[in-house]
Amino acid sequence: MQGFHFELQHTDPSGARAGLMTTPHGTVETPIFMPVGTRGTVKAMTVEDVRRSGASMVLGNTYHLFLRPGADLIERLGGLHRFMNWDGPILTDSGGFQVFSLGKLRTIGEEGVSFQSHIDGSKCFLSPEIVVKAQEQFGSDVMMQLDECPPFPSERKYVARSMELSVRWAARSKAARVPPEKSGQALFGIIQGGMEEDLRRASAEALVEIGFEGYAIGGLSVGEPKEIMQEVLSYAPDFLPKAQPRYLMGVGKPEDLLYAVGRGVDMFDCVMPTRNARNGHLFVDGDGGHVNIKQARFREDPSSLDASCGCGTCAHYSRAYLHHLYKNREILGIMLMTQHNVHYYQALMKGMRLAILEDRFEAYVKARLERRAEPLL
Amino acid sequence: MQGFHFELQHTDPSGARAGLMTTPHGTVETPIFMPVGTRGTVKAMTVEDVRRSGASMVLGNTYHLFLRPGADLIERLGGLHRFMNWDGPILTDSGGFQVFSLGKLRTIGEEGVSFQSHIDGSKCFLSPEIVVKAQEQFGSDVMMQLDECPPFPSERKYVARSMELSVRWAARSKAARVPPEKSGQALFGIIQGGMEEDLRRASAEALVEIGFEGYAIGGLSVGEPKEIMQEVLSYAPDFLPKAQPRYLMGVGKPEDLLYAVGRGVDMFDCVMPTRNARNGHLFVDGDGGHVNIKQARFREDPSSLDASCGCGTCAHYSRAYLHHLYKNREILGIMLMTQHNVHYYQALMKGMRLAILEDRFEAYVKARLERRAEPLL
Repeated sequence: MQGFHFELQHTDPSGARAGLMTTPHGTVETPIFMPVGTRGTVKAMTVEDVRRSGASMVLGNTYHLFLRPGADLIERLGGLHRFMNWDGPILTDSGGFQVFSLGKLRTIGEEGVSFQSHIDGSKCFLSPEIVVKAQEQFGSDVMMQLDECPPFPSERKYVARSMELSVRWAARSKAARVPPEKSGQALFGIIQGGMEEDLRRASAEALVEIGFEGYAIGGLSVGEPKEIMQEVLSYAPDFLPKAQPRYLMGVGKPEDLLYAVGRGVDMFDCVMPTRNARNGHLFVDGDGGHVNIKQARFREDPSSLDASCGCGTCAHYSRAYLHHLYKNREILGIMLMTQHNVHYYQALMKGMRLAILEDRFEAYVKARLERRAEPLL
Repeated sequence: MQGFHFELQHTDPSGARAGLMTTPHGTVETPIFMPVGTRGTVKAMTVEDVRRSGASMVLGNTYHLFLRPGADLIERLGGLHRFMNWDGPILTDSGGFQVFSLGKLRTIGEEGVSFQSHIDGSKCFLSPEIVVKAQEQFGSDVMMQLDECPPFPSERKYVARSMELSVRWAARSKAARVPPEKSGQALFGIIQGGMEEDLRRASAEALVEIGFEGYAIGGLSVGEPKEIMQEVLSYAPDFLPKAQPRYLMGVGKPEDLLYAVGRGVDMFDCVMPTRNARNGHLFVDGDGGHVNIKQARFREDPSSLDASCGCGTCAHYSRAYLHHLYKNREILGIMLMTQHNVHYYQALMKGMRLAILEDRFEAYVKARLERRAEPLL
C-alpha cells in the first residue's frame, strides 16, 4: 500500500506553492482543483470526460453517499473507486457542511449531529467516528474530519464554541481511524473560527498539535463578501505547516482560486464549474469571464465559446449550437458545457502551476485577470 | 461530390440482404439502424459516443429542426453536419409523421399541411417543396418526401385517398429537388396504403414509376398489433426494386428488426434505444430481452448489465451503480444507459449482417431470440 505523501516542490516569491501529492491511487500535481462528484459521479461527465478535462482527483460527498446508496453497500461493492470506475485519487468531505446546511432539520450535540434525511425524512446520526468509518468503507484517499461549519454571519461566542467542538471532534476522528500505515488513507483536519483571526489561529494550533496529513480551511464561501474571504486568507494559511497540503474547501470562482493560490493554498473543490454549466453559465477568457449561453445574441454565433480554450467543446461546436441545445434542454448541451467549464478550471490550475515553477505567478495572475476582462471575441 | 449509390452485396436464402450504401458523407453497411438525433443531437450522446456504439449514420427530424433553430439558420451555419459535428451520413425525415401526430392542430390540403408549432403556437405550413428545400439546406445525405401517415385504424377509403395524395406529393418532391448529380443528395419515396395489400402495391408501383434513389415503408409502428405489421411486411418489400435500399420507418424493437431484415428491409430508425434508456429500460440478452434498472433487485447487484455485451457501460459499471444513478436522476445514468442500448442495437445489426453474408440468417435469428429469452445471469 502506497501511503500518503506531500512534497512541496517550489514556492514562488508570492508565496504560491507547487507540489506533488501522492496517494494510494497515484500522484497528483498541486495546486489542484477537484471537480465535485457528489453521488459518485461528476455530474454529466463520464470518467473519461473527467480525465480528458485534465482533472486528476475528484471529490465525493460523504453526506450524500452515506444516505444513498450507503457506506456498507459501497464497501461490499468494492469501494467508491470501483463503484464509480474512477482509478485516480478521491477526497471525500465529512458531510458536516451538508448537515449544517439542513438548518432546523438537525441538532448538534457533543456526541455528533442528528438530522433528518433530505431523501425520506428518516432520522440519521453522524459522529466523528461514524464519518471516519464511512470514508474508510469508501476507501477515500483523503478523508475529512467531521466539523461544524457556522453560517455567516455568526456571533463570535458561537463561532468560538463551535470551533472548540470541531477541535474535539478532530481528536476523536484521529483516535477512530485505522492507522495510516495500514490503510494508506490520509485524514485532514479542518480549521474553523469564522472571520476571527485569533480563533483561526487557535483552531490551527490545536489541530496541528493533534497532527494530520493535511489541513483544510473550512467555513469560507458560506455567503461572506469577497473582501472578508480574502481577509481570512491573508492570515489563515500562514498558521499551517509548510510541509503539508492546505485545502480551501468549497472555493470557488476563478478569481478566488488565483487569489488563494497566491496565499499558499494547494487544494480546492467547488460545484461551480459543473453546476454553472447546467445553467448555461460558462467560464471564458473575455467578456468579464462569463458567458450566459441562453442569451439571444448567441443564436446565430458561429464562433467557439472561447477561442483560447483547448477543450473538445470549443474545438468542435459553435455558440449557436450550444445555444440551440440549451434552449431545447438537450442533455448533450449540459455534457458539452460541463466539459468546457471543468476544462477551463483545469487549464487555469495548470497555468498557475507552471507560473509558480517559473517564479512568475503574480504576472500570470495579472495577465489572466486582464484576459478575462477583455471584450468577448 | 460523391453521389448516392447502393450496392446489394448478398441475399441470404431467407431473403435478408447485405449491402453497401454510399453517400456524400461516406459508405455505410446495411442492414443499418440509425439512432435518432431529433434536434441535431442523438440524445445524451456525444458524436464520439455515437461512433463508439458502432453507429455510422444518424437520423434528424425535419419537423423539429425546421421549427427550431430553422433551416435557414442551419444553412448559414454550414449545414446540419457541421452544426452537430457529425461527419457521417445523415438521413432526415420529412416531418410528415410529426405533423400528422399533431391531430386537431393541423389541416391537410392538396397543397400541403398547415399546423400550429408545438413550441409557440405560431402558424406554420409544410409542402412537399418546402420540405425538400429544408432538407437541401440541412445538407442531408438522404432526404425523405413529405407524405401523409394515416393513424391506425383508419377506414380504407381514407387510406386510399391519403395514399394517392402522398403519391402526388412524391412527384412534386422530385420535381422540386436540386438534381442529384448536382447535390449528391438522395431522395426517397415513401409507400403508404395502410394495412391493405392492394393499396400498398399501387403506392409502390406509382412511386417506382416516378423513380427515387430508395423507398421507405411508412405508416407502420403507428399502434397496430405486431401481427398486422408482420402481415404488411410479408408482402410490401416485394413490391420494391431489388437494386435499391428499402427503409422501414420508425421500427422498432429488436424482434421487429430481426423479422423485417428477414423480409428484405435494409434500413431502420427508432427512438426506442435512446428513449427507453432515459427511462431505465435496457435491452439485454436474457431475461426476456429487457431490464428495468429501477427494480430493487438491482440495488446491490455487482454484475454488468449484459455479460455478453461489449459496450463500455457493461465493461466498467455494475447494475448496482446504474441503479444508483437512475434513482438519483444523475445524467451520467442516462448517458451510460443510452450508450448501452445504442450499442446493443448496433451489435444486433452487425450480427445480422455477418449472418447474411454467411447464409445463416435464419439460424442467427433463432439463436438470438432464444438468448434474449433466457433467464438473466
